[in-house]
Amino acid sequence: MDFVMVLGLLAATITTFSFFPQVLKTWQTKSAKDVSYIMLISFNTGIFLWLLYGIALKSLPIILANSVSLVFNLIILWLKIKYR
Amino acid sequence: MDFVMVLGLLAATITTFSFFPQVLKTWQTKSAKDVSYIMLISFNTGIFLWLLYGIALKSLPIILANSVSLVFNLIILWLKIKYR
Repeated sequence: MDFVMVLGLLAATITTFSFFPQVLKTWQTKSAKDVSYIMLISFNTGIFLWLLYGIALKSLPIILANSVSLVFNLIILWLKIKYR
Repeated sequence: MDFVMVLGLLAATITTFSFFPQVLKTWQTKSAKDVSYIMLISFNTGIFLWLLYGIALKSLPIILANSVSLVFNLIILWLKIKYR
């Protein structure tokens, strides 16, 4: 595995799991009023399209990174609706 | 340009510009206490690595999407520090 591949996998892992602390924070504080609805809805839509793109390309890294990111971001959206 | 390419470009455009409403909201409400610091710092780090990955691959879509996302997310982080 070359350096560029490692760089890409590292980038994908970090951006994907960066949403976990936000899930945790929102769940603990029971508040997400400062998080934009338009951001969450458009970001979830965009990640879903990335997932379809990964499926079309049969690219496992794109599929994995975006399914996990989609789950985290749907949870953040759900928590925001729940605690509004 | 084929359908898969259009799908990828659409996904990149939507995820990139989804951060703009968050910038606007934080700037208007002068509050980002519900936005996680760990999320912002790790997400900015991840996007920066995506940018390096794009430069290594000489991929203009990856470079463009991630430079714009990085600018938006650095502004969100800066606003969060400013209004803390």
